[in-house]
Amino acid sequence: MKHCRVIGFDADDTLWHNENIFEQVHERYRALLGRYHDAATVDRTLFATEMRNLALYGYGVKGFMLSAIETAIELTDGRISAEEIRTLLQLGREMLEHPVELLDGVAETLATLARSHRLLIITKGDLRDQERKLAKSGLGAHFAHFEILSEKDEAAYATVLRRHAIVPEEFLMVGNSLKSDILPVLALGGAGAHVPYPLTWGHERVAEPPHAPGRFFQLTGIRELPALLQT
Amino acid sequence: MKHCRVIGFDADDTLWHNENIFEQVHERYRALLGRYHDAATVDRTLFATEMRNLALYGYGVKGFMLSAIETAIELTDGRISAEEIRTLLQLGREMLEHPVELLDGVAETLATLARSHRLLIITKGDLRDQERKLAKSGLGAHFAHFEILSEKDEAAYATVLRRHAIVPEEFLMVGNSLKSDILPVLALGGAGAHVPYPLTWGHERVAEPPHAPGRFFQLTGIRELPALLQT
Repeated sequence: MKHCRVIGFDADDTLWHNENIFEQVHERYRALLGRYHDAATVDRTLFATEMRNLALYGYGVKGFMLSAIETAIELTDGRISAEEIRTLLQLGREMLEHPVELLDGVAETLATLARSHRLLIITKGDLRDQERKLAKSGLGAHFAHFEILSEKDEAAYATVLRRHAIVPEEFLMVGNSLKSDILPVLALGGAGAHVPYPLTWGHERVAEPPHAPGRFFQLTGIRELPALLQT
Repeated sequence: MKHCRVIGFDADDTLWHNENIFEQVHERYRALLGRYHDAATVDRTLFATEMRNLALYGYGVKGFMLSAIETAIELTDGRISAEEIRTLLQLGREMLEHPVELLDGVAETLATLARSHRLLIITKGDLRDQERKLAKSGLGAHFAHFEILSEKDEAAYATVLRRHAIVPEEFLMVGNSLKSDILPVLALGGAGAHVPYPLTWGHERVAEPPHAPGRFFQLTGIRELPALLQT
């Protein structure tokens, strides 16, 4: 990977914890609706609402909250109280105000790589929320660009690479989602390093690992990146 | 203004109608809460909630909906029903699905200007919602870039100009908000053309028109732009 000059990083669950915050909120959500439905029904219905609303709301905490309120009304046949909906709004605010907790090895690895490579963040979600997290992370100075997309598909990556005059053959994308971080970049001729996070949102799961010898790398942690780039 | 080479356009209420959609929703919101409070109290409380949540939620329909639900619970002391909150969610969906209605003269003026100038959109709001509106507007081909910002202040404009290698002295920003479209650009040394919209959201109002002879232009409609650029 000595020909790699530019490295793109996903943010949520690649640089800092995110899905664990959603998981904690899911647990409190299940508890709130526990007297109406079992946990599996709550999870399944919420996920179905999120998928139905995704084209309209996009990714991020605000759309999640709107879907969570809608699901709570549906699952309780309208019996949920305004006080309980207020609790849901409060849960959303706590998610947005949550401290940013870096993943193990991120600070050191980025400091090392920023000396030899051009680094950018390519993420999705709510505009202000992602900017807030980058500011709180203290990592901003390592990155040449910060791209927040409404979808991370092949077309979106192609636009980003063109905008920054990046040749796909010199580009490596690093992230925890095979679907959003790796597959579209491989399709464009770039390389991808998958660093899994213990939790994966249902929407990001893919059945098959990619087959792209010399361009796809399965890592166990971000600390393995500098060695990979020396190969 | 013959030295102007790049023109930035605000989107909502500059290229297409937006505030009138919010105004229609406000009317239905007042009606929904009419048996609890008079219209002025509803408006004032909703605006206060929006301002309190702005740093956390940012601009756009999703944050507006969350603030509207919060305000409805507050104003009814929790007596609002889940069915009424469902109605609020439905209002939000209608806003996001609303057809894009271009303002008078926009299509022709942009087609003319795109032949002589580099055009970009600089807007704020929800990522996916603004992309959806641009796609629906049919105006996309006229623009070299589409920038969606979480805030339109001096620092944000400076970043956009730097990113696209635009010299402030050759840049004209066109928009309906003195606060978000004109003042920050004037402060950077660029020019601004104010095209008012009949409705202005409280948050965008400013007390004083700018004083910047030769760089600030008060227009009555977008059709006046080509003539301005000939001066």
